[in-house]
Amino acid sequence: MKFNICAAKPEDCKDIARMIMELAVYEKMPDQVKISYKELEKDGFGPNPFYQCLVAEVPEEHKSKDGHTKVGYALFFYTYSTWKGRTVYMEDLYVMPEYRGMGKALMATVAKVAKEQHCVRLQFSVLDWNKPSLDFYLSKGAEDLTAKEGWHFLRFHGIALDNLAQEAP
Amino acid sequence: MKFNICAAKPEDCKDIARMIMELAVYEKMPDQVKISYKELEKDGFGPNPFYQCLVAEVPEEHKSKDGHTKVGYALFFYTYSTWKGRTVYMEDLYVMPEYRGMGKALMATVAKVAKEQHCVRLQFSVLDWNKPSLDFYLSKGAEDLTAKEGWHFLRFHGIALDNLAQEAP
Repeated sequence: MKFNICAAKPEDCKDIARMIMELAVYEKMPDQVKISYKELEKDGFGPNPFYQCLVAEVPEEHKSKDGHTKVGYALFFYTYSTWKGRTVYMEDLYVMPEYRGMGKALMATVAKVAKEQHCVRLQFSVLDWNKPSLDFYLSKGAEDLTAKEGWHFLRFHGIALDNLAQEAP
Repeated sequence: MKFNICAAKPEDCKDIARMIMELAVYEKMPDQVKISYKELEKDGFGPNPFYQCLVAEVPEEHKSKDGHTKVGYALFFYTYSTWKGRTVYMEDLYVMPEYRGMGKALMATVAKVAKEQHCVRLQFSVLDWNKPSLDFYLSKGAEDLTAKEGWHFLRFHGIALDNLAQEAP
């Protein structure tokens, strides 16, 4: 099927917000989504954007059964390794179920952007029960650093973050 | 002991590079460090810095046995959660063994910066065998998302990243 992958524009944020929720439902945590398309607009398209996003779009004749032509997205940002340097972190990769085969092209486009920006790593996180995705990434040559080296992912938020900040000298 | 925590300056990069190597030795992966203080200068202090860094400094009379007054650092950058919004990711937190008690103040200062920048999360990764650090973070209220929700950390690099980029449409 014909499709295009383009850098997201502010007017894509409603579609991106819709797909963020679809991904959260797939990941069994829909109640975790607290941001709206307005925050996506503000945070992604100001003078210091917090993220970058690619959108996969199909022609009108291939629109989804509920009328969508924006059918996938990859949201990422630049991070930094003190061992290797510039890195891309892919926060989300999602394609609507009817169009799932496009995921590979979206991910490859993120990798291409990473190389163009002189990044030496493309990193992301996957839930351990999401075997189809995990197997797909591993088959493409990704390393599972939690399994291989024992990295655990930690977070302060809410009251724990407030309390910690108050301990600053 | 008296100490100051300040935003890193370009001239701190030699000390930061030294401590990056000390941390890598502690993490049992010293051969992984490929960047030098020159890349740290370029990547952290240009018009679009890839990271931010805090440095802990002691007065001359408390310098380390090999003569250092810069004795700790916290290196971090801004990332983005599509569920919650702006986030700080702390890539490294390190204090030289003689000064280890300062780690809490450094981490709390990162949390304070996060709050000032309207970030709702402070995230980082820890090796599972590093029990003293893991227990310390958990005691301060951090959540271990790998243990709790099953998040695994994945990476494309080297030839796998090159191959992936070449598949872009």
